[in-house]
Amino acid sequence: MSDPVVAVLGGGQLGRMLALAAAPLGVRCRFLDPKADAPARDLGPLVIGALDDADALTSVVDGATVATYEWEGVPASSARLVAGMVPIRPGAKSLEVSQDRKLEKDTFRALDIPTAQFAIVDDRATLDEAVHAIGLPAVLKTRRGGYDGKGQAVLRDDADVDAAWSRLGDQPLLLEQWIAFERELSVIATRDADGHVVAWPLVENVHENGTLRTSRAPATATGDVTTAAHDSVRKLLDQLDHVGTLALELFDTGDALLANELAPRVHNTGHWTIEGAVTSQFENHIRAVLGLPLGETTPVGHCAMVNFLGGLPDPADVMRLPRSHFHDYRKSPAPGRKVGHATLVADDPDALETPLSELLALAHAASASLETP
Amino acid sequence: MSDPVVAVLGGGQLGRMLALAAAPLGVRCRFLDPKADAPARDLGPLVIGALDDADALTSVVDGATVATYEWEGVPASSARLVAGMVPIRPGAKSLEVSQDRKLEKDTFRALDIPTAQFAIVDDRATLDEAVHAIGLPAVLKTRRGGYDGKGQAVLRDDADVDAAWSRLGDQPLLLEQWIAFERELSVIATRDADGHVVAWPLVENVHENGTLRTSRAPATATGDVTTAAHDSVRKLLDQLDHVGTLALELFDTGDALLANELAPRVHNTGHWTIEGAVTSQFENHIRAVLGLPLGETTPVGHCAMVNFLGGLPDPADVMRLPRSHFHDYRKSPAPGRKVGHATLVADDPDALETPLSELLALAHAASASLETP
Repeated sequence: MSDPVVAVLGGGQLGRMLALAAAPLGVRCRFLDPKADAPARDLGPLVIGALDDADALTSVVDGATVATYEWEGVPASSARLVAGMVPIRPGAKSLEVSQDRKLEKDTFRALDIPTAQFAIVDDRATLDEAVHAIGLPAVLKTRRGGYDGKGQAVLRDDADVDAAWSRLGDQPLLLEQWIAFERELSVIATRDADGHVVAWPLVENVHENGTLRTSRAPATATGDVTTAAHDSVRKLLDQLDHVGTLALELFDTGDALLANELAPRVHNTGHWTIEGAVTSQFENHIRAVLGLPLGETTPVGHCAMVNFLGGLPDPADVMRLPRSHFHDYRKSPAPGRKVGHATLVADDPDALETPLSELLALAHAASASLETP
Repeated sequence: MSDPVVAVLGGGQLGRMLALAAAPLGVRCRFLDPKADAPARDLGPLVIGALDDADALTSVVDGATVATYEWEGVPASSARLVAGMVPIRPGAKSLEVSQDRKLEKDTFRALDIPTAQFAIVDDRATLDEAVHAIGLPAVLKTRRGGYDGKGQAVLRDDADVDAAWSRLGDQPLLLEQWIAFERELSVIATRDADGHVVAWPLVENVHENGTLRTSRAPATATGDVTTAAHDSVRKLLDQLDHVGTLALELFDTGDALLANELAPRVHNTGHWTIEGAVTSQFENHIRAVLGLPLGETTPVGHCAMVNFLGGLPDPADVMRLPRSHFHDYRKSPAPGRKVGHATLVADDPDALETPLSELLALAHAASASLETP
């Protein structure tokens, strides 16, 4: 292997962290992103262009060893175009499945991965049938294009059904059973080019207004629950012939683990692995797409990651917290925008409580200062 | 603090690793180096120029928040020139002292830091006097410009004295007592802008042909030895008013710890801190020069670092070793050249033995393949 170059479709903070994991290995990344101020810009050449622009795609992969993506919104047609020029890992299939809630749910079902009840909604009549079959509360979701709680409506009564239909009814939809989950979990794994899979411990996640705020790892979970989650993600990786890192979000209802959705890429709930595991999700993704052996996923401590949404706290305040690691994505502040994160590591989970509450207070203050100018 | 930029004088692998530690903090580095293929080139803008070129120095620090250096050969006059434009941390004094073995030894002596016996050699007569006073074996060293065993001669008998004088006699010299050390140690510490000092555990080092091959940390050492080393490095940092990371190399004779030399910068014997300590020597250097609080230096395991000299082994072979971390500096292979390193981490020191012997075998094979083309 001499001087490998990875072309990354998308140049956000995930691309930035991929490049930071790649550089020690002697691997350079370059990026395609529509924005000149894409967060990855500091860490490799940036081609500014749309992710469906054939010229831009050709330009970013020219001379690259392999292509990959850091955003699940990359059109599958772009991945297929790229595949004619250089290997792309993971491939178009992982994009297609993750971009369509029906394909995603069908894939889960075909693999015996438990999910919430769901029904396809093509028109007002099928919506009413679905509400009747599944019951309320339920969640109406667009089949395509939703993320971080966008493109969704919670239906509690008939008025909600009418309102949601007026707002979302002009596109393919899916109605999902409302899950009164006890907690949200995720599991992240990497599959290499030979089909070997490594998985990190389960992560417990807390969202605020639909956006991830906190991840804790390893989540408290029985061996059975962990095994079930690892089995699910492994079946999914194999089914998609996915080479690289993938995240599966899960609802823990207390009785069952239900698959919510997959992200065919490195994932926000895996940022703790940078300092908290022997090998990070980013390094294993780079190793996988280059055909290198995967690294161990063993945690090195108990971790809590907090997202900075909207604005960053003073870095010095974060750095003063014990065993804290500050990450600034170099993005402009904007309400709700993910502009950075910090990870705390401790030898036992109780030792995380005080610094975590302090870190959350800093994060909330930084978010609030953005929202009330 | 908004978007800080650190101008780094020198763009070698140390600059590369500084930039990799800086990026997560939202800190960009740029570099001045005479070589267009300087290892740091991938990680920030590179000004190609000599380290004593006023125009090049002006260009690299233009608009920077602070300047620093990653090579102790940067002329002190360059540091003074830069200091007129932006703060430079550490300053010219640390360079002056480390570049002159007499100033260095005088500084150790003034601070009651034990060293080998030494004498200044200005001409053949003072060499003979020094040999008489110190005895043989002894080491004749150039006062300036020596590193990795270069500019040195070991004197065992009168013939060696004559030969060394013919080879080195045209420059200021210093004769040092030959130390039959049991082992070589180093201690690395960072001092912040307010004078706070943090130090990592002692490191035990093995050289091959004058070049570092292996570092192990934390070194086995009594509390007294560790305290003595930490006291020495703290006095040195204070005396130099050094802001940033500094390394002190020591000989352990079994009875005493003798200071050998200092490096006013991040140091090869501290590379293990990237994966092996809560905060790396590189991140603490960046934090210090920017006036940010320093991070904890607690080790997260037992570490062994092996330098790749000459050529790199196959990365996959290194990655297959348990808990191994591969580093490729993106340098051309050349006999003896430091082209990369790998660090192994384990929960107890015995668990390092087998992978370390395997890693050393890979490193030696890669070196040998370069030396016998």
